[in-house]
Amino acid sequence: MERNYSDIKGVKELIDICWAKGMKYVIVSPGSRNAPLSISFAKDDRINSLVVVDERSAGYFALGIAQQTRKPVGLVCTSGTALLNYGPAVAEAFYQRLPLVVISADRPVEWIGQDDSQALPQVNVFGQFVKASYQLPLDANNQDDCWYLNRMVNEALSKAQSGRFGPVHINFPLREPLYGVKSYPNSMERVIGKINSVDELSLDTIASIADIVNFNQKVLILAGLLHPQEELNELLAELAQNKNVIVLSESVANIHNKEFLPCLDRVICSIKEEELDHFKPDLLINFGGPLVSKMIKTFLRNNPPKEHWYVGKEDHFIDTFKNLTSHIDVSPLAFFKQLLPLIKLSESNFSGYWKQRDLEVSDIHATYLSEIGWSDLKAFELILQAIPEGGNLQLANSSVVRYAQLFKTSATLTYNSNRGTSGIDGCTSTAVGAALVNEKITTLITGDISFFYDSNALWNKYLQPNFKIILINNGGGGIFRFISGPSGVDELEEYFETVQDYKADRLAATFGLDYFTAENQEEVNRELPNFYASNERAAILEIKTPRTVNDQVLINYFKTIKAKV
Amino acid sequence: MERNYSDIKGVKELIDICWAKGMKYVIVSPGSRNAPLSISFAKDDRINSLVVVDERSAGYFALGIAQQTRKPVGLVCTSGTALLNYGPAVAEAFYQRLPLVVISADRPVEWIGQDDSQALPQVNVFGQFVKASYQLPLDANNQDDCWYLNRMVNEALSKAQSGRFGPVHINFPLREPLYGVKSYPNSMERVIGKINSVDELSLDTIASIADIVNFNQKVLILAGLLHPQEELNELLAELAQNKNVIVLSESVANIHNKEFLPCLDRVICSIKEEELDHFKPDLLINFGGPLVSKMIKTFLRNNPPKEHWYVGKEDHFIDTFKNLTSHIDVSPLAFFKQLLPLIKLSESNFSGYWKQRDLEVSDIHATYLSEIGWSDLKAFELILQAIPEGGNLQLANSSVVRYAQLFKTSATLTYNSNRGTSGIDGCTSTAVGAALVNEKITTLITGDISFFYDSNALWNKYLQPNFKIILINNGGGGIFRFISGPSGVDELEEYFETVQDYKADRLAATFGLDYFTAENQEEVNRELPNFYASNERAAILEIKTPRTVNDQVLINYFKTIKAKV
Repeated sequence: MERNYSDIKGVKELIDICWAKGMKYVIVSPGSRNAPLSISFAKDDRINSLVVVDERSAGYFALGIAQQTRKPVGLVCTSGTALLNYGPAVAEAFYQRLPLVVISADRPVEWIGQDDSQALPQVNVFGQFVKASYQLPLDANNQDDCWYLNRMVNEALSKAQSGRFGPVHINFPLREPLYGVKSYPNSMERVIGKINSVDELSLDTIASIADIVNFNQKVLILAGLLHPQEELNELLAELAQNKNVIVLSESVANIHNKEFLPCLDRVICSIKEEELDHFKPDLLINFGGPLVSKMIKTFLRNNPPKEHWYVGKEDHFIDTFKNLTSHIDVSPLAFFKQLLPLIKLSESNFSGYWKQRDLEVSDIHATYLSEIGWSDLKAFELILQAIPEGGNLQLANSSVVRYAQLFKTSATLTYNSNRGTSGIDGCTSTAVGAALVNEKITTLITGDISFFYDSNALWNKYLQPNFKIILINNGGGGIFRFISGPSGVDELEEYFETVQDYKADRLAATFGLDYFTAENQEEVNRELPNFYASNERAAILEIKTPRTVNDQVLINYFKTIKAKV
Repeated sequence: MERNYSDIKGVKELIDICWAKGMKYVIVSPGSRNAPLSISFAKDDRINSLVVVDERSAGYFALGIAQQTRKPVGLVCTSGTALLNYGPAVAEAFYQRLPLVVISADRPVEWIGQDDSQALPQVNVFGQFVKASYQLPLDANNQDDCWYLNRMVNEALSKAQSGRFGPVHINFPLREPLYGVKSYPNSMERVIGKINSVDELSLDTIASIADIVNFNQKVLILAGLLHPQEELNELLAELAQNKNVIVLSESVANIHNKEFLPCLDRVICSIKEEELDHFKPDLLINFGGPLVSKMIKTFLRNNPPKEHWYVGKEDHFIDTFKNLTSHIDVSPLAFFKQLLPLIKLSESNFSGYWKQRDLEVSDIHATYLSEIGWSDLKAFELILQAIPEGGNLQLANSSVVRYAQLFKTSATLTYNSNRGTSGIDGCTSTAVGAALVNEKITTLITGDISFFYDSNALWNKYLQPNFKIILINNGGGGIFRFISGPSGVDELEEYFETVQDYKADRLAATFGLDYFTAENQEEVNRELPNFYASNERAAILEIKTPRTVNDQVLINYFKTIKAKV
């Protein structure tokens, strides 16, 4: 049995190694210079090859797949500015620790700067946003070139998924003719394995760590951006039984238990100066990616614990609260697995204070929500109740992901958000990619600025019937009306909020999505079931909320909690 | 009289220097970290401050303004991936030699990599695509910091518009609070002048250059991408009177005279092997930016002249035809101004061969056009006849700019195209920016892939009634069907042409443009006048052509010329 690929040396080899190293998807953007790659990936039936024209959107689309699968996802583009359009998604992947593998076609180096088309210096364009950058040899015809190419591709694919995962860039200069195809025997090229040391601490080390935890009366465990991990969830649930331990989590941490506190902002805002001693930890253990909640960051910066441990495979110190005392360089799962058996019961009342407060605030939240009028906050309440069980939730930046944090999470949902760099530029494309590889219903909740920014996310053939967009259209970037700085300046509406009155109905029609709309509570309650029942095509539900009311509702929400506790 | 700006040291100074160095426009994208900049630019009434949300589009929008004004144009964005979205426009500006001034807000350096939001290493992100990159001091409170900041901003603004023009990047770390405003006395900060040496050659040098030109019987002058320069045009027209000199120009060279040959491809394709001696030059003089015509490049690479001079202010050798013998480092205008008085009449018949051939081909072209059916080529004939006199033409990449080259240029039009890197990613945004600062009618001719790629170009408040989009919708990237490589492979429709059936009518409605449509010759002739008569809002004319016919019409066009000459 033979297989057909480009007749350019190295292309078939690259694909063999990508496949052997776990790549299941490659996103190709059309072009001529990358023809050897796109033709060969198309002919290979082991890796799914998809076409997305806009490289910026393609980058985030690939990121959405990587976020769901935790496997390397390929990106293939032609030479020139095409590659630069991957920049935002590559940076997001770096901080979200996702293994994107950018494979850019390039012109031979002698053509750079010669005023010939689509030629620019592509080597290292992603600077510090990739874990490594590789320049493949041109015309790899001698044995040394072949050895070098094989080794670099092997290393790139391994590096993307070792230690702290992250994107890599393989730049592939290709000489014309580009369209030749030939048949290869069905044998694999050399694949170099990577065998890692065991992910655990020595018995001595974990014993001394456990001693410190056991000795401490106030241990705060804080979970940031994480993908769902059932075993980790169980370990933390058991740990949270201890009275000296409270587990705070962000929505996007994807851990769920009745003992955890997933609504950080609303609880933190209620803590009064004179109560600080009850709530501030002596030992802080945190893990996972960037945190959404500004309040928890401020709380922990202003009330430094005696010790702060960051747990995770990282290559540098992440000192988010300015009081890091130890970086524990194993995965959170490995860490808690070793720690739990060594934990002793404690008679602290630390977790009691937190849980009691959480209950109080929960009541105030419910009362407040029952009394407010039509607004973003009200819309979130209705939406979050209606998300079908077992679904995959995508939360756009940045109002949406913050609103969602005010509500209890559901154990049956997964929560995703581009919080690596918190950009609004690819939230929809990420969700489209995620929906493609996740058979559950994927609901993207987004605001109007994020949605219009990334409308090219809809410009491809991979929108699935399981993909649902809930667009909260409040006529601008409402977050700027909420935060105190811009809300006071003359330039608010034009330079920050960007007041607009665009609607998504015609975009939906252009790209073939079902479209629903609602402008008040009754309409939302009526349309949500129709929206979820529609299952022939992807769908948008556009919810209109009042631009100039939302900020007051939210400001009063926090005021009310503070006043009533 | 006092003026108000951010109370952060350096912001008012930056704006003073930008204005003093010729900046008239700044494009701001909303964000929080850049608030000191956006508020201050908004409050300054000397520089026009515009808001475009999508930074990728904003970058090209700014480029369109710079292309028309030849003055520095500012770009202001927040920290994080926002900045990376400028990448494509910055690279295009670099190769198109346009003075974009990117001013990015940044977080203080100690926050990079700390999993706090929108923080990534921004220094030098544009690598070799900017002429220089500057990191301003944070909290410039001591005298040395102030001196450093002032000097860097002065240098950045001068560098962008000295020698080979090009983009620069000023990264500005800003610490909270970001929203304070204070009043400043109405005095200017220090502006450092830049006084350049005279742009001319020594008398000895130009004399020896003139000797070579006079001695040569076959001198080919080739003009690439240039902005309109009346004086240069006149000099070249006079030079073209000489029988040993032929002036070939691209549409985007913006030179026009009956003695010039502006339709390169159709003439070059007609030259037979046995006629090469008549047509190939002994001396080639070229200037201007990248060339569109692949045929002229191949012709000059395969038939190397004895000497090839590149004329222009450049910092490196540009050896497009592989036979460069001298880089003459003055502007084309200065060069021809000095050269012309020294030129002697020649009895060569070199230009005669070219002009005669041009006439023959012109007749074949006219006959062929009169005989073909509905197709892209036919559409171009109708469109180009209908462009109002004195207009500004924007030609998208890459089919459009190639088709346009097959037709004689008009002396009353200006021709623009993003040929720096030949990307499709910002053609519409560039045209929107250009239309804003050019009071004439700006017509963008674009294909469906370029148009949908950059649909965010329509997502701003600056679409002018003088802005006209002619969208040739042939249902995909038709260029791949024409070029021989991809047209033969199984993957043509999916991986190259990207067959699609999207229409622009609803996008037009979403963003408030008038919309016209035509599907054949009669409809185009009927709608073009209505389209140009509509003058209340920007307008789109969508012309549908048959996807699978266009390539054959174009292939036969060249075949017919070859056969009939």
